[in-house]
Amino acid sequence: MSEAEEFLKVARAARDAATVLAPMPRAPKDAALRAVADALEAATDEIVAANAADVDRARENGTSEAMIDRLRLDAGRIATIAAAVRQVADLPDPVGEVVRGGTLPNGLELRQVRVPLGVIGIIYEGRPNVTVDAAALCLKSGNGVLLRGSSSAYSSNTALVRVMQQALAATEVPADAVQLVPGRTRESVKHLMRARGLVDVLIPRGGASLINSVVEESTVPVIETGVGNCHVYVDADADVDTALKILVNAKAQRPSVCNAAETLLVHSAIADEFVPKALTALKDAGVTVHGDERVRAYGADVVAATEEDFTTEYLSLDIAAAVVDSLDDAVAHIRTYGSAHTDAIVTRSQQAARRFVATVDSAAVAVNASTRFTDGGEFGFGAEIGISTQKLHARGPMGLPELTSTKWIYTGEGHIRG
Amino acid sequence: MSEAEEFLKVARAARDAATVLAPMPRAPKDAALRAVADALEAATDEIVAANAADVDRARENGTSEAMIDRLRLDAGRIATIAAAVRQVADLPDPVGEVVRGGTLPNGLELRQVRVPLGVIGIIYEGRPNVTVDAAALCLKSGNGVLLRGSSSAYSSNTALVRVMQQALAATEVPADAVQLVPGRTRESVKHLMRARGLVDVLIPRGGASLINSVVEESTVPVIETGVGNCHVYVDADADVDTALKILVNAKAQRPSVCNAAETLLVHSAIADEFVPKALTALKDAGVTVHGDERVRAYGADVVAATEEDFTTEYLSLDIAAAVVDSLDDAVAHIRTYGSAHTDAIVTRSQQAARRFVATVDSAAVAVNASTRFTDGGEFGFGAEIGISTQKLHARGPMGLPELTSTKWIYTGEGHIRG
Repeated sequence: MSEAEEFLKVARAARDAATVLAPMPRAPKDAALRAVADALEAATDEIVAANAADVDRARENGTSEAMIDRLRLDAGRIATIAAAVRQVADLPDPVGEVVRGGTLPNGLELRQVRVPLGVIGIIYEGRPNVTVDAAALCLKSGNGVLLRGSSSAYSSNTALVRVMQQALAATEVPADAVQLVPGRTRESVKHLMRARGLVDVLIPRGGASLINSVVEESTVPVIETGVGNCHVYVDADADVDTALKILVNAKAQRPSVCNAAETLLVHSAIADEFVPKALTALKDAGVTVHGDERVRAYGADVVAATEEDFTTEYLSLDIAAAVVDSLDDAVAHIRTYGSAHTDAIVTRSQQAARRFVATVDSAAVAVNASTRFTDGGEFGFGAEIGISTQKLHARGPMGLPELTSTKWIYTGEGHIRG
Repeated sequence: MSEAEEFLKVARAARDAATVLAPMPRAPKDAALRAVADALEAATDEIVAANAADVDRARENGTSEAMIDRLRLDAGRIATIAAAVRQVADLPDPVGEVVRGGTLPNGLELRQVRVPLGVIGIIYEGRPNVTVDAAALCLKSGNGVLLRGSSSAYSSNTALVRVMQQALAATEVPADAVQLVPGRTRESVKHLMRARGLVDVLIPRGGASLINSVVEESTVPVIETGVGNCHVYVDADADVDTALKILVNAKAQRPSVCNAAETLLVHSAIADEFVPKALTALKDAGVTVHGDERVRAYGADVVAATEEDFTTEYLSLDIAAAVVDSLDDAVAHIRTYGSAHTDAIVTRSQQAARRFVATVDSAAVAVNASTRFTDGGEFGFGAEIGISTQKLHARGPMGLPELTSTKWIYTGEGHIRG
């Protein structure tokens, strides 16, 4: 069987399974998730052995130890993955929720009810825990899932999916609802991107180049996630200590994530006081500052920023910095260079906060708070499949309800239109 | 200037205008809509003259009188169009609505608020009233709009957009927020479909071939609308009189619209009683029945149905018909041949209704009611931009809230993550 035929086989199997899964109530889905969690722990040795093959191959290929650490699974990590699945089982089921409803003037009873999307394709890099996390969230929300992880984790992902399918086979949830996209070539991703009609939505999780290539090539609708060029704007009216605390937290508390800050903008009226203190605080936190000319005037350590610095998601202890002459200039900068993920203002001015919130067109806007709070866990969602930076369907952290569509149901007693 | 350059000019102008329009509260938007309504009535002569050019050209091209009637504008129709704009002004503004919100355990105040999508592209056929309707709905929801109507209505649409822009120029809403896509060639549609980054969403309104070509070719996210291959399923437990009433209404009350029924499915247990009566009732309503072999056994007038009949959106006084052996077979037929718009069951059985509702995967499911109720007006939306048959973002009739996205806003007092 060719890779294309193999893909069609698993995609159709996922679609058929999703049809069975969609109307299923919460109890059997939760029971299936708990069975998956138990099975993953019971299969620890098998999973670790499969993972070892990926780790060995990565090492042969000269992969950095940091990347190998992301790839590695051990008993402790598998227990953590299983615990996360049990947490998803504990979350409320979004399916069946009545979103709107009422009785129309003619007596028709109308309800808009959450239903699963159908089959969700997830394309992701790095950590094999995503394989299980994403499968659990899709199953809980009644969806079939086609998983396409990094080829570097193919053995691990194959083992994880096999264990999940075996566990599901003993439950009411069809085992075929969880599928690994066969093959580790670039071509296998393309099958997924062109499976319009079989796959209802694709969610790419990873860096900008992965996401852009999926957006460009996919005929399946895509939800863009996770590229975060987040800004901290320090307004003329900012409390300096608050601004320093937020800046350092947003940049340095966990620089590798999408809600970390990548650019600092400072109002010129406060620059003399704030920028020198900011440069010291950032230096103490190990951060390299890439500044425009006006920022460089305040410190010898500041690297000259190019235009590219302002568009870059560093994901490292680097930050771009510029001085702006007004709040509106800051907003214009964010619109030009940002990724519409999360942008923060630090200010004591109610008017400035109001204008910034109204005019920054991003998934999240933070006022006197670190950008790091844009997160499904922090927002109380209990779980997160990614952070959407697009405007259609879902925007910002996506929890279980964002993995559903809706259906209108109306009930009459022979109602006809006049 | 080339057509491509002209397109970029108007698209950028719409984008800049949308930035100004997005944070605008309700009052100035409503005032602008009322000014547009007044201006359209005041410019009746100018609009009718422009329309006459389209009508003359259509007649030269041998267009049918029915199509010419759809194209024609007169003082009465312009008054109706203006009244519809005033109705949109009377509707609540979705922008600013707090969808979810609360205070997080750490004291952060979190709100999810409706915001405009940005710039919406509308591609449509036929009636020039859509030009004004769509513009009014987009403006009310804070969006810029790029209108691409039928080339046969180009003179009419040019006049309508000119009058709207002139009216807006005297209001707080930027006149550039409403734009006609320049040019009447197929190429001009392509500019719109490839304007990712300038246009946030495309809504094609029209027949299946228009919608499919937009879905295939567009890099801008698309909301599919309006193709309706709607089914009426008459269950074993149906009340026959109720079923006849619903069938005739769904098929014949207004056959040219997307929520009209195109296929009748009858449970074999009730076929002997129901099908002969249905054939008579449909014949009396002037409907031609295209039946499978089992339906043809009941009537000499029944045309033999091909597989294509079951996929066809007739939009005429024709209906496909088949006998099925179970509710599940009916659902399978609907999944195979339907367009996931609206499907109805007629039954007295609570269990059958429940199963049909749970397993039919369509935007709307009707129980003992005509499919014709799937409509923004009937649902109480006050206005409708189209009926989405896709699962992402919006499903079923789309009113003003469906023309918005959301933004998360969180406010703290120096909150940082630990």
